[in-house]
Amino acid sequence: MTDAASAPGTVRPGGRTARIRAAVLRAAEDALIECGFAGVDLAEIARRAEVGKTTVYRRWGTPQGLVADLLADMAEQSVRRTETGSLDGDLRANARLVVSTLTDPRQGVLFKAVICAATTDERTAQALHRFYATRIAEWAPCVDQAVQRGEAPHGTDAAEVIRAVSAPLYYRFLVSGDPLDATVADQVARTTARAAGTGAYVR
Amino acid sequence: MTDAASAPGTVRPGGRTARIRAAVLRAAEDALIECGFAGVDLAEIARRAEVGKTTVYRRWGTPQGLVADLLADMAEQSVRRTETGSLDGDLRANARLVVSTLTDPRQGVLFKAVICAATTDERTAQALHRFYATRIAEWAPCVDQAVQRGEAPHGTDAAEVIRAVSAPLYYRFLVSGDPLDATVADQVARTTARAAGTGAYVR
Repeated sequence: MTDAASAPGTVRPGGRTARIRAAVLRAAEDALIECGFAGVDLAEIARRAEVGKTTVYRRWGTPQGLVADLLADMAEQSVRRTETGSLDGDLRANARLVVSTLTDPRQGVLFKAVICAATTDERTAQALHRFYATRIAEWAPCVDQAVQRGEAPHGTDAAEVIRAVSAPLYYRFLVSGDPLDATVADQVARTTARAAGTGAYVR
Repeated sequence: MTDAASAPGTVRPGGRTARIRAAVLRAAEDALIECGFAGVDLAEIARRAEVGKTTVYRRWGTPQGLVADLLADMAEQSVRRTETGSLDGDLRANARLVVSTLTDPRQGVLFKAVICAATTDERTAQALHRFYATRIAEWAPCVDQAVQRGEAPHGTDAAEVIRAVSAPLYYRFLVSGDPLDATVADQVARTTARAAGTGAYVR
């Protein structure tokens, strides 16, 4: 995801403006990881990103605006879905991607910070909801394909199946503290694929 | 927990100690709702609760200790499960209870505040995990009863079924921002009961 921004040869296309955005978003990400939303100070981020303070204030306006842009960038940069040829396989790939993101030391802390920021700020909440809508729209076609292959009945709510994979993983991550690993990912994917197969998500 | 409040025999229900605890926990709850975890200042809470500052510092020690005790109290006080005679009915009662708690203006904000506090503080995280373990243990017997009635196969993981009801509701509450109401509660309960019936939670 955002590591691409700093890896040689993978800098976002688009010249100076894009380079400034990449540097500022990276600094915002670092600040969120280190101190949570309270650490997102525009002047300090401009200093870290080696970008003029005026540029940062003019372009992003507020910490909320900057975090919203970071979430938009995270949605743009996020990984394309995997196609394995079966619903169980596709949902397993999705579940494993979610688990590896949430258990990554940087990404996990970043997601906790933005999710918590969204609980008290409406603009951040809207940006977060757009991020998840993008991710769900990316993966939903795997359910439609499964319906075409006869693995789940017509009328299956594809988005709801994808949410059903993410939900138990986020519940463990944020709420219950139960283990979060590849075994759990596979179990959640299998349970969801089976439930979808029996028509549990037909709406 | 090391709090005096949780040591057997040290609290006489209705006595002075219990009244002090009730007043302090209520003030802590108010502070969390108004300002989040950052608002939990022991001196200010003592003032609001009209309790001596020394008492609060001696008994709860830190904001983390106070929030941990609040979560223990929330687990003690929380609603007993409903028995409806069917798995679908019991899970619906559970789902509706979760939804009504999370959408209650005070409770919803309180849960967001403690869940977010737990993302950055290990002691709060442990107290939160104990809270959910208590709630899951309260509801799991409804699944065991359903197994006895033949509504789900032997070997069904009762705790996992209860988590499967909560997870999509918390996902909507904290992450996706999708609607959270009685219709969703009933849908989640029905999907989970059907999946349990087909053996999706046999471990």
